[in-house]
Amino acid sequence: MPAARNAVVMMGGGPTPVINNSLRAIVEGCRELGNQFGTVYAAWQGVEGLLREELLDLSAQPEEEIALLRTTPAAGAIGTARYKLTREEDLARTIKVFRAHQVGYFFGIGGNDTQEVCLKVAQAAEGTGYELTVVGVPKTIDNDLGDEQFKLVDHTPGYGSVARYWAWTVQCLEEENRGSAPADPVLVVQAMGRRVGYIPAAARLADPEREIPLLIFLPEMNPTLEELAGLVADTVRREGRAIVVVSEGLKLAELGERRDAFGHAAFSSSRATMAQLLVNHLNDVGLPARGLARGQLPGTEQRDAILYASPVDLTEAHQVGRKAVLLAAEGKSGVMATILRAPGNIYRAEYGAVPLAEVAGRDRPFPAAWVDHERADVTDDFVRYSWPLLGEDLVSVPIVDGRLRFARLRPIFAKKVLPDYTPAAYRQGG
Amino acid sequence: MPAARNAVVMMGGGPTPVINNSLRAIVEGCRELGNQFGTVYAAWQGVEGLLREELLDLSAQPEEEIALLRTTPAAGAIGTARYKLTREEDLARTIKVFRAHQVGYFFGIGGNDTQEVCLKVAQAAEGTGYELTVVGVPKTIDNDLGDEQFKLVDHTPGYGSVARYWAWTVQCLEEENRGSAPADPVLVVQAMGRRVGYIPAAARLADPEREIPLLIFLPEMNPTLEELAGLVADTVRREGRAIVVVSEGLKLAELGERRDAFGHAAFSSSRATMAQLLVNHLNDVGLPARGLARGQLPGTEQRDAILYASPVDLTEAHQVGRKAVLLAAEGKSGVMATILRAPGNIYRAEYGAVPLAEVAGRDRPFPAAWVDHERADVTDDFVRYSWPLLGEDLVSVPIVDGRLRFARLRPIFAKKVLPDYTPAAYRQGG
Repeated sequence: MPAARNAVVMMGGGPTPVINNSLRAIVEGCRELGNQFGTVYAAWQGVEGLLREELLDLSAQPEEEIALLRTTPAAGAIGTARYKLTREEDLARTIKVFRAHQVGYFFGIGGNDTQEVCLKVAQAAEGTGYELTVVGVPKTIDNDLGDEQFKLVDHTPGYGSVARYWAWTVQCLEEENRGSAPADPVLVVQAMGRRVGYIPAAARLADPEREIPLLIFLPEMNPTLEELAGLVADTVRREGRAIVVVSEGLKLAELGERRDAFGHAAFSSSRATMAQLLVNHLNDVGLPARGLARGQLPGTEQRDAILYASPVDLTEAHQVGRKAVLLAAEGKSGVMATILRAPGNIYRAEYGAVPLAEVAGRDRPFPAAWVDHERADVTDDFVRYSWPLLGEDLVSVPIVDGRLRFARLRPIFAKKVLPDYTPAAYRQGG
Repeated sequence: MPAARNAVVMMGGGPTPVINNSLRAIVEGCRELGNQFGTVYAAWQGVEGLLREELLDLSAQPEEEIALLRTTPAAGAIGTARYKLTREEDLARTIKVFRAHQVGYFFGIGGNDTQEVCLKVAQAAEGTGYELTVVGVPKTIDNDLGDEQFKLVDHTPGYGSVARYWAWTVQCLEEENRGSAPADPVLVVQAMGRRVGYIPAAARLADPEREIPLLIFLPEMNPTLEELAGLVADTVRREGRAIVVVSEGLKLAELGERRDAFGHAAFSSSRATMAQLLVNHLNDVGLPARGLARGQLPGTEQRDAILYASPVDLTEAHQVGRKAVLLAAEGKSGVMATILRAPGNIYRAEYGAVPLAEVAGRDRPFPAAWVDHERADVTDDFVRYSWPLLGEDLVSVPIVDGRLRFARLRPIFAKKVLPDYTPAAYRQGG
């Protein structure tokens, strides 16, 4: 029987409230299968730490802290990055780091960009004859990883929690807006999700019976500012008020987008936000009501507010992490663990594997059939799809002295044995 | 013994997550003292409904719905308004409505503007010889009601919950920012609270030991945009990242403020927000780090997100409402029920009464001694003051079919007996 080889776990891209529950599953799963897996390291701060040989020893952490990862949101525990790992020398360095630390298993937790990183690393290992088992773990609140037919990926861990965030936030905003309508008839709220509509769509879960004067503008709708304002004015005329959920990714030139390292629009860094543009326009043209339009811009809380974590999402993030370990243990490489929906009318998740090549670097679109352009809404088919992901019950988070008690990992790193390395992208003028 | 006389409860201004627990206390308290209190009505949509003789019958509601008010946030249950009740004819109409419905008790739940309404109504009743007991109930997330010495009001219901919102939100943002620093080194978040610093100050409760690279800009600090950006840049140079909490009320002309009916700045309707100005400036001048500054703008969730309700706040909102009923039962009029802090080192609330004239229409400032200008911070004295208001444990909210189950009051109104009336402010050109 061959000696156990070590494992590296890496996160990429933006986090979710439940991402660390996948991490926990990998650490605990590898520990259980200790004759196959040796030490589990985290690539500190994602690809960047991997290239710099910064490997946080997760096997040496107190068990309590690993357990607390369950309800510790976002990527602060091990860090993440938005670094594009495509250059030959970066990939060669990656394999060197793995070789130096007897790494036989690589788990990449992330969206389609991170799955592309996984694919590239698998190819680089194969190219140099280095034996490496690469398994991806899905993660994105955007739910844009997978295929449009939901056969490879039903939904991604993180989406259930952001769906709950929007369902419950809009419920609370409805209490606010209904109560304050004379002074504050229009509330504009901006949703994440880039150019894909899954996140703003979840606002409909607040009100499947359509009793709230709620307008949802998906990026797939692509209205002009005037069309948008016209629909809001119609609703205010009819109902006296409106709650307007707008996607950050509506295509309006006035936003003045800035771009991140992957070349994606960094919407929260734009010169103006979609919500602000709409609020200004509505107040400039004047509402068909007393009072003003007001805007608010939820930000990263959509992906880090642990209070909104869905228990379904939390469990599935764990189970899909566990599935990844089992796949690795079976020697399956070049695949991503995935969540599928079991057939039947009662929701049940199943876990499987898909080739990395089928999900890497591809955006899953929001189904055109779920968009209701005329009413600025989504269809009931979307509600049926997403509803089971909300779950029942609050997720209980440990509280100590009035503060949330999050995991605090200790800075125990693998001893560096290689020469220093600067990631290729940072070499010329940074 | 005189016959029981009816009561009217009214809300004014912006809501809190726990405001309805004061309402519940009044309904249930009056029911308990049924030989003194008759029917309890709510002024539907605040002053406006009062003037229009729209009186929602709270005594006729199902008991379950009244009980559910406990964890139903904001003012949607009975409505609120930002209408300035100062005109003679509006005040005369108010007394007429009370007379027509045998109203002997008036409870006004709100901040200093609402307490001014209570005072005006009490004076109007006295001026016309109408027997009316007026008792105010404090409410404002801004905590700017009362006196600077905390002898009249220690804190207001609503503040403990917004303090928890900020403590926990900054804790979650820290997990986000620490994990994502290479790409997203600076996170700018804007806090409510108008020109008074209690709300942004609560961000410090996330980190009383000062381990997070957190800058807090209170409106009391009044920095220029350049000074602000300079302090952020210093932090990024030192720590590689920064979380920046800015008050909506920092005085920068570029905001393009719009004003509400009370003449207050309506910050969330401004042409640009403080957070956006700072994000743009930071990205324009360039950060001393890779990546971009990002902004987010929490809005009304600071006052309506029930998940962040502090159990201390929830209990105190109830108790102060109950105190108001007891004051009214004793025939105390022209007073506001208040929360005081019992002497001693273990936090305990006491309930008392203060003359409306001492709190009406006055902003309590944030103590100058609690502002740390140099470090863009607040002092430990502020932490000691606000800490006990956070409470332990999550507040449990009923969930049905994945949605929060809020109170749904039935539209049972007192029969109108007076001629129609248009509030004076809406008569000319509206």
